[in-house]
Amino acid sequence: MNRLEGNWWSEPCEEHGSAFSLKVKSRLHEEQTAFQKIEVYETEKFGNLMVIDGFVMLTSRDNFLYHEMMSHPALYTHPAPKRVLIIGGGDCGTLREVLRHSEVERALQVDIDEGVTRAAEKYFPELCESNDDPRAELHFADGIRWVKEAAPGSYDVIIVDSTDPIGPAEGLFGEPFYGDCHAALGEHGLLVQQSESPLYHMRLLGEIHRYMRKAGFADSHTLHFPQPVYPSGWWSATLARKDGPIEGFREADAANRPFATRYYSPEVHQGALALPPFMKEAFANLQT
Amino acid sequence: MNRLEGNWWSEPCEEHGSAFSLKVKSRLHEEQTAFQKIEVYETEKFGNLMVIDGFVMLTSRDNFLYHEMMSHPALYTHPAPKRVLIIGGGDCGTLREVLRHSEVERALQVDIDEGVTRAAEKYFPELCESNDDPRAELHFADGIRWVKEAAPGSYDVIIVDSTDPIGPAEGLFGEPFYGDCHAALGEHGLLVQQSESPLYHMRLLGEIHRYMRKAGFADSHTLHFPQPVYPSGWWSATLARKDGPIEGFREADAANRPFATRYYSPEVHQGALALPPFMKEAFANLQT
Repeated sequence: MNRLEGNWWSEPCEEHGSAFSLKVKSRLHEEQTAFQKIEVYETEKFGNLMVIDGFVMLTSRDNFLYHEMMSHPALYTHPAPKRVLIIGGGDCGTLREVLRHSEVERALQVDIDEGVTRAAEKYFPELCESNDDPRAELHFADGIRWVKEAAPGSYDVIIVDSTDPIGPAEGLFGEPFYGDCHAALGEHGLLVQQSESPLYHMRLLGEIHRYMRKAGFADSHTLHFPQPVYPSGWWSATLARKDGPIEGFREADAANRPFATRYYSPEVHQGALALPPFMKEAFANLQT
Repeated sequence: MNRLEGNWWSEPCEEHGSAFSLKVKSRLHEEQTAFQKIEVYETEKFGNLMVIDGFVMLTSRDNFLYHEMMSHPALYTHPAPKRVLIIGGGDCGTLREVLRHSEVERALQVDIDEGVTRAAEKYFPELCESNDDPRAELHFADGIRWVKEAAPGSYDVIIVDSTDPIGPAEGLFGEPFYGDCHAALGEHGLLVQQSESPLYHMRLLGEIHRYMRKAGFADSHTLHFPQPVYPSGWWSATLARKDGPIEGFREADAANRPFATRYYSPEVHQGALALPPFMKEAFANLQT
């Protein structure tokens, strides 16, 4: 048997019998907030690692994959994304990517736990470099209530950058929440939900689509991308459009984007939308 | 610190400070051949696991990703893939995918270690279901010498389905071997090389391209795909064409393929070719 020896931090995914580990130098931060336990480690090769309740949230090295794919596909699909709401996303990485879009006039980040943002400011300062942008608003509040109380049609894009659907984030994966998102979105409005692993979580992925459609969204589509530090190393985001098909990708704008990306490009965007046959079949079966 | 407790088999990747683990029930097989140590485990959730010299080779659950992507993109890019040579690939999974193509008249698998194939027959019988196909030839021999001694122009596609570039497979990643492949390929001939992780191995990836071009290949292109059990969970294959640009994808044939695939489709094929900006930049820098 091969066993890990040395200073490894491991996240087992018992349900699927796999685990991912990072070699760490030291623990930089440990805090029990009113909502969850936040830890930050210095790793050997992945920069800093943030852990919440024992689950990897992000590392310095590979978070670009997730943050770019949670932001740019939706923002380049909406015709005029001016008002963006991020639910969760306390590490501010999604906010930074959203604010790269000059069309955005107002970007609100609503995370229930201020502790996440304070830890990110200290240990992931690069992700927080846009927090002082005059278009940014950081709120520390219950995202479910925030969306429920939002004025109808008040956002163009809502990005649900949440933890897994257990604990505080569970209510972010259901039909009532999606219904409130639907009401809070304006014409052509887009919802983005981080939607777990295509290899591990097809049942949840199917439920996300079903709940989105039941909540009134006219169309939904999953895109997939690598994310080494999450279970299976393969992750997804699911887009839903309030009032019509998910089309109108502003491909020329994406190609001429005036900012650098490391993973995202128009070609990668299109590639991420190409679903392998096993995913297509699973979605087809779930919809009957 | 989170440590793994229970019956985990782990593969650390010390160079990148990460590790992947699978929960195992028992070891089914252990054998030291003349070339390497072969082990097979029964896992909790990934079916059987084959390990060579401490490195994951494949599992029942997710090998479809790798085997489909090592085979179908090249076979649907060659105009008439009749003669296919697989170097390595002793588990027979690539051979099975190659033989799904009715154009293939002869498919040779040349693995140095018969022990791998015998273990695959026993523990991964589904991968070996085409071994009795009259078009299949299983040879247990040195792949480097096999290619060196091949008649010029005798293959349409050569697939290098090897272990990592250390140990017996090291010679499969260099200019001399690629030069012999170039000579052994016929008109429009394609070489496919498994080429490690885009996140971890960009230097090696760049070298593979450089060596391919130096060896006379007219064009080369990397495609990427998820592969959860390999380091970083993100993997790649690099295609090279003997005598012209990598184009002529037979998209309609791929769309109308008369066999089932789980990951591969024409859309996924195109998506896999879409390189993220960080990869494009790394390749551009390496070529100067």
